[in-house]
Amino acid sequence: MSLILLDAMGGDFAPKNPIEGAILALKDKNFNSDIGLVGDEKLINESLNNLNVDQDLLKRIEIFHASEVISMHDSPTKAIKEKGNSSIVVGLKLHKQKVGDAFISAGNTGAMAAGSLLILGRIKGIYRPAIATFFPTLKGKTLVLDVGATVDCKPFNLMQFAIMGSVYMKIFSGNLNPTVGLLSIGEEPTKGNDATVKAHQLIKQTNINFYGNIEGKDIIKGVVDVAVCDGFVGNVLLKFYESVGDFIRSVILKYLKEPPSDLSTYDYQNYGGAPLLGVDGISIISHGKSSPLAIKNAILVAERMVEEKLNKKIEKEIELFDKDEYKQDAV
Amino acid sequence: MSLILLDAMGGDFAPKNPIEGAILALKDKNFNSDIGLVGDEKLINESLNNLNVDQDLLKRIEIFHASEVISMHDSPTKAIKEKGNSSIVVGLKLHKQKVGDAFISAGNTGAMAAGSLLILGRIKGIYRPAIATFFPTLKGKTLVLDVGATVDCKPFNLMQFAIMGSVYMKIFSGNLNPTVGLLSIGEEPTKGNDATVKAHQLIKQTNINFYGNIEGKDIIKGVVDVAVCDGFVGNVLLKFYESVGDFIRSVILKYLKEPPSDLSTYDYQNYGGAPLLGVDGISIISHGKSSPLAIKNAILVAERMVEEKLNKKIEKEIELFDKDEYKQDAV
Repeated sequence: MSLILLDAMGGDFAPKNPIEGAILALKDKNFNSDIGLVGDEKLINESLNNLNVDQDLLKRIEIFHASEVISMHDSPTKAIKEKGNSSIVVGLKLHKQKVGDAFISAGNTGAMAAGSLLILGRIKGIYRPAIATFFPTLKGKTLVLDVGATVDCKPFNLMQFAIMGSVYMKIFSGNLNPTVGLLSIGEEPTKGNDATVKAHQLIKQTNINFYGNIEGKDIIKGVVDVAVCDGFVGNVLLKFYESVGDFIRSVILKYLKEPPSDLSTYDYQNYGGAPLLGVDGISIISHGKSSPLAIKNAILVAERMVEEKLNKKIEKEIELFDKDEYKQDAV
Repeated sequence: MSLILLDAMGGDFAPKNPIEGAILALKDKNFNSDIGLVGDEKLINESLNNLNVDQDLLKRIEIFHASEVISMHDSPTKAIKEKGNSSIVVGLKLHKQKVGDAFISAGNTGAMAAGSLLILGRIKGIYRPAIATFFPTLKGKTLVLDVGATVDCKPFNLMQFAIMGSVYMKIFSGNLNPTVGLLSIGEEPTKGNDATVKAHQLIKQTNINFYGNIEGKDIIKGVVDVAVCDGFVGNVLLKFYESVGDFIRSVILKYLKEPPSDLSTYDYQNYGGAPLLGVDGISIISHGKSSPLAIKNAILVAERMVEEKLNKKIEKEIELFDKDEYKQDAV
């Protein structure tokens, strides 16, 4: 039986949405774990009382008190150092001590990334972590990494992202041989900036199903299952795409009196949280505006990552390509 | 009286669309220049005959023969070196020799960028050129540069892009104090990759209306008039955005039997061509799929750049901030 830790104080609608999301997960027949709510004990109990949660479900909830909250405006590394009693730091430490098997927060993304790296450390062999998130495409969805954990990536970092993304996608798509593309500015291996041109050569030598370079237009077309890029590029693209969702909605509403019910397909929030791959633990960063459904989805993803022993699989694949000649530009 | 040179062989629909675009421009009351069509003389004459062009307009067209064509699939630098009789090389050389005052092509973008730099050279003081293009936004349009001419930008390059973009926008928006944003992954000056964090400090010291950092979501919102970024990032974003246009169309068509007539607002082709700023001449790169209207728009833009003496204005502004201490990371 696993225990999934959830930051009850994280996000724009805390503690309401995290707690409602936890209840939704506990009600799901496929979810077998318990949930640990991390945050202000009094507020959490109040919320649970207001929701009239069944006793059966309440038994599967454990509360871990944390007296502080890292706000969206706090400086990430400073907050991690100075707010030792914050729900993010307390939650990550409980995970590190193996009290819980995963930690999820819809709070400050930077603090989650910095805190996870500092408190959990890295998977053996991994140099830099990457945040992986799904982009809705015309064919379904493409996993894009990194979307903001590591900027100024070296070629070797991009190669490790390609391996981690492939392992993750295998688990979550059911596709045992997902294609991996390297985001660049031309299809030819020689097109791109210095890092991508070198990364192309490194990724070619791994055992993943490397599609080669892809371009910006190929993401929405769903040309590959996994798209690898530097965290700067991925973050700009993610935020751009999120705003496109609003743009599409405003354009469509111009022509239709009522929004079509399935327009939410194009809403990134349906995809739950984004795992920080490469840290020695399971750390999932959810969007600050996460709905209860998005939180529930993140909790189910976390349970799956625990059951599948994702990090063991990553460690094994990374070890295969942990060659010194690849690492010249790595550190 | 200016002469605007146009590559009659460039683009997916050449020579038809370039020639029809030239005719549209000549018919426009605000357009006073002559047009030089560069390409296969026989094909051009055939097209002109088929179009039954008025004698009055024909008098304003000059044909410059070029026996070769650089295709979309040719390797840019190789093609520029080896295809000396191509319409792109011939056109750029005619411009360099001041036979014509500007050159426009909807052909191979890489060849236009490489050829312009090689044949025209750079404006005094400019280190690297940038392709500038308009992104449609909720408020109107934002000029984004660079979208593919220079990757692995140094901070000083980004500062020069900011200055060039500001000068260009002043001319084409009528706004004498356009805001310029630096595309990054957080609003704070310390957020970003190494190049943007340093560029932020350099741009702050110029006399342009610097808004500070913007994020991916701010482009479609139209938060700034000009957005500055590395050519790798800008190119990924441009191609992503182009594919979003198709995405929006497919979503809307799902709900409407006929596409609304003004949906073309969201079509980047309406914005004509993208100037390669920083080269010592006027070089405009149009999209390969350019319609005659897009070509016409590019021709009007070129005339305006000539009349406004854009490059003189850029040179003057660049000189003001041509300080050695800014250039440590420049070359």
